[in-house]
Amino acid sequence: MRILLIGATGTIGSAVRSELSQRHEVIAAGSGRRQADVTVDMASADSIAAMYSAVGKVDAVVSTAGHTYFGPLQELTPERNELSVLGKLKGQINLVLLGMPYVNDGGSFTLTTGILMDDPVAGGASAAMAGGAVQAFVRSAALEMPRGIRINNVSPNVVQESIETYGPYFAGFEPVPLSRVTLAYRKSVEGAQTGQTYKVY
Amino acid sequence: MRILLIGATGTIGSAVRSELSQRHEVIAAGSGRRQADVTVDMASADSIAAMYSAVGKVDAVVSTAGHTYFGPLQELTPERNELSVLGKLKGQINLVLLGMPYVNDGGSFTLTTGILMDDPVAGGASAAMAGGAVQAFVRSAALEMPRGIRINNVSPNVVQESIETYGPYFAGFEPVPLSRVTLAYRKSVEGAQTGQTYKVY
Repeated sequence: MRILLIGATGTIGSAVRSELSQRHEVIAAGSGRRQADVTVDMASADSIAAMYSAVGKVDAVVSTAGHTYFGPLQELTPERNELSVLGKLKGQINLVLLGMPYVNDGGSFTLTTGILMDDPVAGGASAAMAGGAVQAFVRSAALEMPRGIRINNVSPNVVQESIETYGPYFAGFEPVPLSRVTLAYRKSVEGAQTGQTYKVY
Repeated sequence: MRILLIGATGTIGSAVRSELSQRHEVIAAGSGRRQADVTVDMASADSIAAMYSAVGKVDAVVSTAGHTYFGPLQELTPERNELSVLGKLKGQINLVLLGMPYVNDGGSFTLTTGILMDDPVAGGASAAMAGGAVQAFVRSAALEMPRGIRINNVSPNVVQESIETYGPYFAGFEPVPLSRVTLAYRKSVEGAQTGQTYKVY
């Protein structure tokens, strides 16, 4: 398959890239040129449209991208919340709305949500919001995808490889290895299901 | 209690207003002056801030407001999706972020989501997205609300009183009477729970 992977330079994205590259042609998109084949600003619908125009037809679109705001609720302003709305919420949904014409018949979209929408922590309300939006969109959009195109989302727990950075926020959570998370992306891309949330926890 | 009800002129809002007015002082906010005490544009954070400034301290904020885009996925553009993002998603979350200082100790927020986030229909992806975002935000924000303030959301099924308008989209759904939906709002305002989704289906 020819797969467009957005967020390819992040922790999860890098692991997904390694996994999928074993069997597929992966075009890596990221917010910077570092290790990416094409750049994209998820906060900009114009940038997403330009990315698709540059890349052309693909069999799968996988997003491991999406910045969110993390911090105390009482410091969460509408402006700070906009980081999550633009990056992870509208960014990923716009990948679908603008990308449908570029996905071949029987292809797929795989988006990323996260455990915080199910199992909340202090500081995570904005990230939870973005995940909840994407999960509900995926479940509904799956009913109407044209030409046999599928759509799923992967909801990872905090991963072992990030625990030094995020550990303090996830007290008592059981971190999962990246290798388990990448399996969920593989299932979405290479499997036959649609409308699913693959919870890696 | 002194209760600010946003969306008071809608089908559900009118019923909630009648129910809560039996025991409480209800200040009705709506998008037009028709039957409303104060006007507000949910798509504008400035308008929400001005509403709170005009109304002052309250014991509860109840939102039955929030426009969404309803239509085929293949006609859903980023611009049309923005109607749901601005009205129902960011609008309701901004009611919380901007309203916290105006809610008395032990008060509450009650937002509105909807069955489409759980039980999707064709045409409902944008509405599902907004509901999923608000539900996940509520669950997470409940952990951090200050001064004993509670936050819940009510997720109504299609109501019997709207079935002539929306019936064709909800084939096989079992419509619920408005009287059952208003009970959920009462439970959220007068009860003691927080972080809940009251599903009226």
